[in-house]
Amino acid sequence: MKQHLNHTMLCDFYELTMANGYFQSGMADQICYFDLFYRTVPDGGGFAIAVGLEQVIDYIQALSFDDEDIDFLRGKGCFSEDFLRYLHSFRFTGDIWAVPEGTPVFPREPILTVRARAIEAQFIETFLLLTLNHQSLIATKANRIVRAAKGRPVMEFGSRRAQGADAALLGARAAYIAGCAGTACTQADELYGAPAMGTMAHSWVQMFPDELTAFRTYCKLYPHNATLLVDTYNVLKSGVPNAIQAFKELGITDCAIRLDSGDLAYLSRKARKMLDDAGLPGCKITVSNSLDEYIIRDLLLQGAHLDSFGVGERLITSQSAPVFGGVYKLVAVEDAAGNVTPKIKISENPAKITTPHFKKVYRLFDRDSGKALADLLTVHDETVDDLHPLEIFDPEDTWKRKTLTHFTAQELLKPIFLGGKLVYEKPSVQDIRAYCAHQIDLQWDEVKRFENPHKYYVDLSQKLWDIKHHFLKEQH
Amino acid sequence: MKQHLNHTMLCDFYELTMANGYFQSGMADQICYFDLFYRTVPDGGGFAIAVGLEQVIDYIQALSFDDEDIDFLRGKGCFSEDFLRYLHSFRFTGDIWAVPEGTPVFPREPILTVRARAIEAQFIETFLLLTLNHQSLIATKANRIVRAAKGRPVMEFGSRRAQGADAALLGARAAYIAGCAGTACTQADELYGAPAMGTMAHSWVQMFPDELTAFRTYCKLYPHNATLLVDTYNVLKSGVPNAIQAFKELGITDCAIRLDSGDLAYLSRKARKMLDDAGLPGCKITVSNSLDEYIIRDLLLQGAHLDSFGVGERLITSQSAPVFGGVYKLVAVEDAAGNVTPKIKISENPAKITTPHFKKVYRLFDRDSGKALADLLTVHDETVDDLHPLEIFDPEDTWKRKTLTHFTAQELLKPIFLGGKLVYEKPSVQDIRAYCAHQIDLQWDEVKRFENPHKYYVDLSQKLWDIKHHFLKEQH
Repeated sequence: MKQHLNHTMLCDFYELTMANGYFQSGMADQICYFDLFYRTVPDGGGFAIAVGLEQVIDYIQALSFDDEDIDFLRGKGCFSEDFLRYLHSFRFTGDIWAVPEGTPVFPREPILTVRARAIEAQFIETFLLLTLNHQSLIATKANRIVRAAKGRPVMEFGSRRAQGADAALLGARAAYIAGCAGTACTQADELYGAPAMGTMAHSWVQMFPDELTAFRTYCKLYPHNATLLVDTYNVLKSGVPNAIQAFKELGITDCAIRLDSGDLAYLSRKARKMLDDAGLPGCKITVSNSLDEYIIRDLLLQGAHLDSFGVGERLITSQSAPVFGGVYKLVAVEDAAGNVTPKIKISENPAKITTPHFKKVYRLFDRDSGKALADLLTVHDETVDDLHPLEIFDPEDTWKRKTLTHFTAQELLKPIFLGGKLVYEKPSVQDIRAYCAHQIDLQWDEVKRFENPHKYYVDLSQKLWDIKHHFLKEQH
Repeated sequence: MKQHLNHTMLCDFYELTMANGYFQSGMADQICYFDLFYRTVPDGGGFAIAVGLEQVIDYIQALSFDDEDIDFLRGKGCFSEDFLRYLHSFRFTGDIWAVPEGTPVFPREPILTVRARAIEAQFIETFLLLTLNHQSLIATKANRIVRAAKGRPVMEFGSRRAQGADAALLGARAAYIAGCAGTACTQADELYGAPAMGTMAHSWVQMFPDELTAFRTYCKLYPHNATLLVDTYNVLKSGVPNAIQAFKELGITDCAIRLDSGDLAYLSRKARKMLDDAGLPGCKITVSNSLDEYIIRDLLLQGAHLDSFGVGERLITSQSAPVFGGVYKLVAVEDAAGNVTPKIKISENPAKITTPHFKKVYRLFDRDSGKALADLLTVHDETVDDLHPLEIFDPEDTWKRKTLTHFTAQELLKPIFLGGKLVYEKPSVQDIRAYCAHQIDLQWDEVKRFENPHKYYVDLSQKLWDIKHHFLKEQH
């Protein structure tokens, strides 16, 4: 089994200064609620895809400080010995609810909620955010690219431009969950089962006395995986003719060429004709070179003859929007008698005002089409009864109202840890991938537009709205 | 000691199909030369900073396939048993030269050169690229931000928005090397010695009945590290007055406030006046909130009273330019007699044509000012004699010529591995940081401009230019 670095110490230092502060102030056992949510969909899209829960679970289960960590912290000179002793036996003993991996999620709704003692709930902030931010970002981007390809396979090719090894591996996992057919990254296959594929670099062609010899040698070795890279010297004058000759000599018909430079629309049309004329209609054309959802959409609109895509840096870094702005905010505290008091973070910037309280998230589906209609946030003790009509309203423009009559309501947040114990069975990556595809099918096309999509409704129950607005009035 | 995942399998699958191909074709022992270089400076800057060599060294030393890896590869059904046996004892036995970490580097010059058997040289491509691409990207960005701050400390605050755990940790390392004063990431301090700092989140303030109690409690606990976050409710009406009261009550004068929202220029001027009027001239003002080099420059131009900066997502992802486009190209092969034959990669796109051959890189410095004048690439068997005049010329506009008379020449590429053995002593992160600062001092201000900098000269020796142009003529 491969060993991972224990990331307990991958915390912001303020989590430790606050923890020591709560410990010294007798607030260590104060039960708190934190929501993890995001505010803006990357690339101006209609939704994001939540990915990364498996790594959050692994992190929570491995949480512990070793002697070296404690010694290091002692050396910082600002922590009490009592607190360091406490850290020695530190474990996560709280509750976590989260949406399953692969779920489409919308701005301002909890993707994950933590209920735990103050120190524990605060301490896990950084790792939870970085994990869900990163993987949700890549899944969201990859799904846009996959949708642009309209059923043609998209391969994730970006390891070499990823922001570190985790970004390569977990990025490949997220891309696979979001619909990519596979990856170039061998270790992502070994660890996560995302099928790894690949054939040759330009250097293979350069290593032989000439291109034809390079192609012949490759086809002999891999008659069942013969994808020849045809742009080392000149695509149409040398690459494609040599590929055709190699395929014909060896009687290979189930094959492909790869274009990695030049104008892919023009070259693919020319190459397609040359391959067809040579009696190789089964030879596929795969392309790479700085692709993303926009270029793929345009190439297909221009009649390019493309059978599959390799997408690198623009997917693995989400180049056009490389930050997923998930945040982690205190929403309630609970006293010893179990009374939950909502908390709010006010801001000059209305977009930064939080929705207080321990909440539920319901997704409401139309009974006829099966499509998602809206999400509804409620206080934790409310229940949506989908056998009766339900009036929902826009939380900003409250006169915009709608009564749903023929709908089903599903709770999105599932219990993951209760009392520090894992109560969730981690699905396989394959199952997450299938679930993700199905959930995206339940979204309207209007929500899936790349630019200016329909804004999906994320509403508050009347009770929750009243609590939030009571706070706002009180403050001003 | 913390354990790292062995990243041998973090390779593109094509590296394995090619390796098996070379093995089956009797080319396994063919000695090759590969250069790792980049083509464009991120953000339109004048130079990049090479970082990541230490992680490359660790990777090369740990290279090995375990039984699980071999079984996994066998299951792919395309590798011969002979080859899998060969992988079992696979080690890197070649040579690597590289520029030291922290060196300013320019487009189209080798940052790292590999001389090794075909399989070994090709196999390490992905990990070398991802490591040097990622860390050089972050160092380059961080240094721009540090330069904008004009001597004020910049803290790296981005873990929660990093693209995975490695991106957080190694990004913090790269940022520290490039001049950041420290990081919020505790583990980056433990692993790399980048000083971790931090005080409180908004949740600390929310956890107490009121802001003043939160501030008082914090100041009592940390009288020597009292930085109070003043924007949870209202900066000027509540945050700053409460901070002043807490500092005064406890007699703390060596303290700070942090602004994390609102207009930082306006708020910092107002807050400065309130602090000064209250007799707290020693209270510093630190700011955060979507900062980068441009915003920091503008804030300072507008007379903001700022003493230090916390920079998050825009640094740790290099948000405005999140890809460093390093590539790894075959430049020569060597026969059994030791004759080195240059190789070139031609492209329709002139920017993608490589500079062939096993090369040296010289940096030429003015003897009077000590400043860097130009870099010169030569064939490996050439030597630059800085005691005699040297004519250099622009490799595109060859009529642009200049004779240097009063200069020193330093070779940039240092031997790292020879015959698979590490021959380089890894410097400490602190030493790399000091070296980096010094090397950047040797660059002219004109090269350091954020936009439209002076283009630093990267020239070819006459011999190298002739070889490259012989290839180009031959091809067309």
